[in-house]
Amino acid sequence: MSQAKQMLDTHPGDLNVDANLLARCLDACSECAQACTSCADSCLSESDVQAMTTCIGRDLICAEICETTARVVGRQTAYDADVTRRQLEACAAACKSCGDECAAHGEHMEHCRICAESCRRCEEACRELLAALS
Amino acid sequence: MSQAKQMLDTHPGDLNVDANLLARCLDACSECAQACTSCADSCLSESDVQAMTTCIGRDLICAEICETTARVVGRQTAYDADVTRRQLEACAAACKSCGDECAAHGEHMEHCRICAESCRRCEEACRELLAALS
Amino acid sequence: MSQAKQMLDTHPGDLNVDANLLARCLDACSECAQACTSCADSCLSESDVQAMTTCIGRDLICAEICETTARVVGRQTAYDADVTRRQLEACAAACKSCGDECAAHGEHMEHCRICAESCRRCEEACRELLAALS
Amino acid sequence: MSQAKQMLDTHPGDLNVDANLLARCLDACSECAQACTSCADSCLSESDVQAMTTCIGRDLICAEICETTARVVGRQTAYDADVTRRQLEACAAACKSCGDECAAHGEHMEHCRICAESCRRCEEACRELLAALS
Repeated sequence: MSQAKQMLDTHPGDLNVDANLLARCLDACSECAQACTSCADSCLSESDVQAMTTCIGRDLICAEICETTARVVGRQTAYDADVTRRQLEACAAACKSCGDECAAHGEHMEHCRICAESCRRCEEACRELLAALS
Repeated sequence: MSQAKQMLDTHPGDLNVDANLLARCLDACSECAQACTSCADSCLSESDVQAMTTCIGRDLICAEICETTARVVGRQTAYDADVTRRQLEACAAACKSCGDECAAHGEHMEHCRICAESCRRCEEACRELLAALS
Repeated sequence: MSQAKQMLDTHPGDLNVDANLLARCLDACSECAQACTSCADSCLSESDVQAMTTCIGRDLICAEICETTARVVGRQTAYDADVTRRQLEACAAACKSCGDECAAHGEHMEHCRICAESCRRCEEACRELLAALS
Repeated sequence: MSQAKQMLDTHPGDLNVDANLLARCLDACSECAQACTSCADSCLSESDVQAMTTCIGRDLICAEICETTARVVGRQTAYDADVTRRQLEACAAACKSCGDECAAHGEHMEHCRICAESCRRCEEACRELLAALS
């Protein structure tokens, strides 16, 4: 059981959604933020960095949004359905945008291939949570 | 002229939108993030903290989203219109949610009154930028 | 093998330190940030929230610092030993401060007990990395 | 009067240090974070991006640390002197590191010149606050 799930199971209040779905989204966001931050740094060290500037930019944006989404979605005390939904939609869009860009480099660069997979998992987890919240 | 505007004026690439509108949104997001972080801390020090838990939660969520929105929207190099628009919509929603909650306490608590005004300005700046991007 | 380690193994540049130690620190920081954010939210939902205000504040500070430390320490391209060391020292101090506070509530509150353990692991991982960097 | 100062003046608890010094540090950190994020993005759009990779990396690290320092230092409710001091030291080191790098490009790039000045002001504000806290 992931730590995120353990923490949700000890929450003294009522959760607004199934704890397993929520924990999966939190874990996917954390993992994707980490992958994107690392991928941006690897791209900056590539010999042809000029070819990677869009990928760096998308990685940085996706990392920011995933991290914030995890923090926002995990907070249950002042839950606001509209804010949560819109942040999840922004996160799914950022993961799609970054995942597409990384996938285009994935054949030649392992860090982009792994990052693209992490973006796909996070996009899917956000969309599953969105579906459960509606 | 704000520093955000000065920085945008020296950007070597083309901006995707009017620099004055963009700078106003960046400054409003930074200011709102700061106000919300400070308001959450003041609420935690209130004698009746029990009455302020929703306000603390909304403040923390709004601070996160405003900070990330400033970072995402300011990046011009890997601009993705869909991601930018959705993050601005999430930010406007967070500012509305937090601004409403803070306004409800504004008569008795100056930190909530100032924070509510900052949320209103940020919501408006996000909506203006959204209108200009469409 | 954790995703952080996989990403480090594909980095095109030279790492400044052993990849296993680095990945362990990145994973501990991410996990601790998540635990502290969740613990703060659980504390806000406790019936006697007044007794938890110090814990909430320490959780929020520790979450911020752990997240930033993961991002800073993971970046290898523009490595600056002095900045990295000082950020790791700040992170170890934040984990100590939050871990002590959470441990004091751990007997009665499971979320504090789990969070305190996460803080201890992160403090240790930061100190191990610090020792390896000197 | 800056909004940070207005917010501190309405704080219901006792501040751990002079409000003017504290507000100056919070404002300098926010401004520096904004400048560094913008400078990194401008560097990514430069025609010779290869020459700017260290600057991009230092900008990103400095932006992260300044933003977190503002949030940590501004929180008064669960004040921990050791954590605050260490985070301010990390911030001063990051501003020094990034300011030096940006200054080296400042003659040819306006965004680096403005960012270097913002780093200097933030480093100074952190050191002044550190002196007042001891």
